[in-house]
Amino acid sequence: MKKQLLATLVLSTAGAAAHAQTAVTVYGAIDAGLAKVSDKTLAVTKRDANKLGFKGVEDLGSGVQALFQVEMRFEPDTGTVESNARPLFQGQSRVGLQGGFGMVRIGRGVTAFQDAKDAFDPWNGISGTPGFKGDVEVAGYTSQPLDPAGSSNDRFNNGIWYNSPVVGGFSFNATVATKEANNGVAVTGRGTAAAPQYPANAEASATPFSLVGQYKAGPVAAMLAYERNAVETKVWHIGGSVNATPELKLMATYARQDQDHTKALNPQTKGWVVGANYTMGAGRFLVGYGQKKPDGVVATKQASLGYEYSLSKRTFLYADASERKAATNVTWYGLGLHHNF
Amino acid sequence: MKKQLLATLVLSTAGAAAHAQTAVTVYGAIDAGLAKVSDKTLAVTKRDANKLGFKGVEDLGSGVQALFQVEMRFEPDTGTVESNARPLFQGQSRVGLQGGFGMVRIGRGVTAFQDAKDAFDPWNGISGTPGFKGDVEVAGYTSQPLDPAGSSNDRFNNGIWYNSPVVGGFSFNATVATKEANNGVAVTGRGTAAAPQYPANAEASATPFSLVGQYKAGPVAAMLAYERNAVETKVWHIGGSVNATPELKLMATYARQDQDHTKALNPQTKGWVVGANYTMGAGRFLVGYGQKKPDGVVATKQASLGYEYSLSKRTFLYADASERKAATNVTWYGLGLHHNF
Amino acid sequence: MKKQLLATLVLSTAGAAAHAQTAVTVYGAIDAGLAKVSDKTLAVTKRDANKLGFKGVEDLGSGVQALFQVEMRFEPDTGTVESNARPLFQGQSRVGLQGGFGMVRIGRGVTAFQDAKDAFDPWNGISGTPGFKGDVEVAGYTSQPLDPAGSSNDRFNNGIWYNSPVVGGFSFNATVATKEANNGVAVTGRGTAAAPQYPANAEASATPFSLVGQYKAGPVAAMLAYERNAVETKVWHIGGSVNATPELKLMATYARQDQDHTKALNPQTKGWVVGANYTMGAGRFLVGYGQKKPDGVVATKQASLGYEYSLSKRTFLYADASERKAATNVTWYGLGLHHNF
Repeated sequence: MKKQLLATLVLSTAGAAAHAQTAVTVYGAIDAGLAKVSDKTLAVTKRDANKLGFKGVEDLGSGVQALFQVEMRFEPDTGTVESNARPLFQGQSRVGLQGGFGMVRIGRGVTAFQDAKDAFDPWNGISGTPGFKGDVEVAGYTSQPLDPAGSSNDRFNNGIWYNSPVVGGFSFNATVATKEANNGVAVTGRGTAAAPQYPANAEASATPFSLVGQYKAGPVAAMLAYERNAVETKVWHIGGSVNATPELKLMATYARQDQDHTKALNPQTKGWVVGANYTMGAGRFLVGYGQKKPDGVVATKQASLGYEYSLSKRTFLYADASERKAATNVTWYGLGLHHNF
Repeated sequence: MKKQLLATLVLSTAGAAAHAQTAVTVYGAIDAGLAKVSDKTLAVTKRDANKLGFKGVEDLGSGVQALFQVEMRFEPDTGTVESNARPLFQGQSRVGLQGGFGMVRIGRGVTAFQDAKDAFDPWNGISGTPGFKGDVEVAGYTSQPLDPAGSSNDRFNNGIWYNSPVVGGFSFNATVATKEANNGVAVTGRGTAAAPQYPANAEASATPFSLVGQYKAGPVAAMLAYERNAVETKVWHIGGSVNATPELKLMATYARQDQDHTKALNPQTKGWVVGANYTMGAGRFLVGYGQKKPDGVVATKQASLGYEYSLSKRTFLYADASERKAATNVTWYGLGLHHNF
Repeated sequence: MKKQLLATLVLSTAGAAAHAQTAVTVYGAIDAGLAKVSDKTLAVTKRDANKLGFKGVEDLGSGVQALFQVEMRFEPDTGTVESNARPLFQGQSRVGLQGGFGMVRIGRGVTAFQDAKDAFDPWNGISGTPGFKGDVEVAGYTSQPLDPAGSSNDRFNNGIWYNSPVVGGFSFNATVATKEANNGVAVTGRGTAAAPQYPANAEASATPFSLVGQYKAGPVAAMLAYERNAVETKVWHIGGSVNATPELKLMATYARQDQDHTKALNPQTKGWVVGANYTMGAGRFLVGYGQKKPDGVVATKQASLGYEYSLSKRTFLYADASERKAATNVTWYGLGLHHNF
């Protein structure tokens, strides 16, 4: 009896296993909490992006694999797509091949530069206010100036991605996008409101691209990136980190944006961030400070302090405090729950 | 040979099982049929909500679990999101923890009151015309008065949910929402069209909350709820049911809405519903009658008769007839197929 | 020890297998590449539809099964829903039953005619420019004239589908839709812009339906279809194919559209396509030529040449060249990667 049962089980699971080989992985993250920002009502908000994704890898033989990934983004407090404005697959929608030659993908996603810098961010690339990701760390630069209003700042539509293999700790990633129009808003630039430099739904005036070199060996990591967007804004970015002890990671970035192609006045912006992560048992302290200095305009200065407490490898509680000084000052207190699945 | 095969199968399924532990459950329901409403053309329509959801539970040890759930809603006859207007995750988007202390969740979903009342609804909370869910049963009350046009009536954005453990048959659930603006339409209320009491994208004037106590012991169940929405409308609701025989469930609800904060005239509305379900083999009869009586306005009276025939535990055929008398009368005949997955 | 481990694995996978029985299948396709069209910038584009779908089958006993399928469509180069305009479940949203009687489904999807013709298309029904699917092959006919602007051309909303069993190589499929309004654009037709024949959000003037008979025996296949849409345009379509050798498939279609109900002038359109597929190892050549001849208007003539190279059963590379002559001529060169999952 038992043997038969076992045989049946094994056979029925054999089917399941066969299917699992080609199965899609459903994954994601949901992150929600409470935040109080100066002069605003208490809000249910997020600290990191909320995701629901689908991905898979297929073995083609000879060490080559096909891969795909599509990823939704959403707002946990209202159930809408991210910002109630962004594409269904805001996270990414890419298909490609990988092997000894590296990885080639085509579609839409975060640029090579924007993807690499998160490892040098004391908040590890979260999009929330206490993090440095979207503004200070990149000196105010956006990768998507000709995309629709409400777009994020760090992606290319119509892109091709190349990630090199890692050789002796070194790797090189690149993204190139076509000049296609993306239904974007007009950019006045050096034009006028009536005759903008880039009218609505304009094509890029030059091919957008993003290049990054990375190095990682033992406790030390570094990156150097250069990117040019659809309106020919350029950004230079350098980042480094060192695990001073197994518990303590120190990191810093410096970025320089050049908007000379679209701005007659004050086209240079510089940004820098220094930070540290300190692990203590299930807890982790995060601390960071950064500045963004556009020529001739008041600087932005941000200091943040955070704590994460792991309930498991996939789930943690967090609390952050952040002070941002600019033309308007913003103080942020937040706490919440982050769950990866 | 056979042994080896078996070993291989077991090993390969071991990987599948390991993955299954953290796997997301994909679930949903699709419900579509034909309906004829007085003075309208025959239509393909739904009786219950159509869902595609993703959920998971993670064991954190010490009897505590992390959980998440995001749920799309859609129209089966046109393929759009629900009502071609609602958020992607209209059903819910919540993350939380549960354990001996009960369950705490944050995000967006049906309020504690609206969630509890379905057990006392002869159509078990279906959204279609023959059911009583959205109007008569709640005395015309909406939980979402400051949400965008086309929103449903039973959810809080920006909410925190608490479900108590069940102790001696008793349990207590609560939802509290922040006062955050949700991009909603203006509510004239006691104002004027030019100066509405709540302008577009207004914040709540008081913290919305929802409280419900429930009792269940053997064949008897009861609930008592109180909720106040973003424009300070209040609703009281009481419901009870008894399984008179294993086949026969009798149920009744009574609700009272108070719109005094926004209505100068006739701010009180009362609603009541009585109903029964009778199971006979694979079939189930549903019958219900209810009234909604707003002060000084013509009452709404609804009588419904239904039959469900189970093809399996997940799938059933249904047929309904419903008569609704109000300022305009509506007669409904419908039949269709409901499939849970 | 080992035995115990094995037992544990088997037991834990037993749970996984039990779940797998009712599990939803997540499937899809992602197809992206580069294309150069005359007078346009190089673009990242697709050749075939990009899909993410969810489907399942439930055994009800007695040889009857319940089934459902919902399918998203999206743009891989921008991450939006298809055409940045179409419903979330653009592909289909249907539920139904199948058994010895055939298959009955209700919801939204491709019509019986539009579904059948892909087998006689040298590009196998791909939506991209080098294919013949959407225009020449159907003589310019659309199944969705009263649906919202930006809709595709081959679906019915509010439909019921019947697929007969295959008897002696013959089968018969039918789709019927209700006359429900679908929030569509106005159709001037025989009216005027001020008083269109079908105003915005009009109901169908007659019940739309689609009928197709198919025959398949050994190397020979044929189809005959008739469809009438919501504005009473009719289309006749005939298709045939023969596998001349195991490597060589020859095919042809002829279609005739009658728009007399809405067009006073030149209401007749004829379309025909001839094509071949030739398999050589992992490669497959595609060749096709077709014409569309609306009465009294310049004809459309299209010639296409393609090559597909399979990296696996699910993944292939492709390259196409296509020349389309009409009022405006279009030359297309494209290459890319198609991955099914």
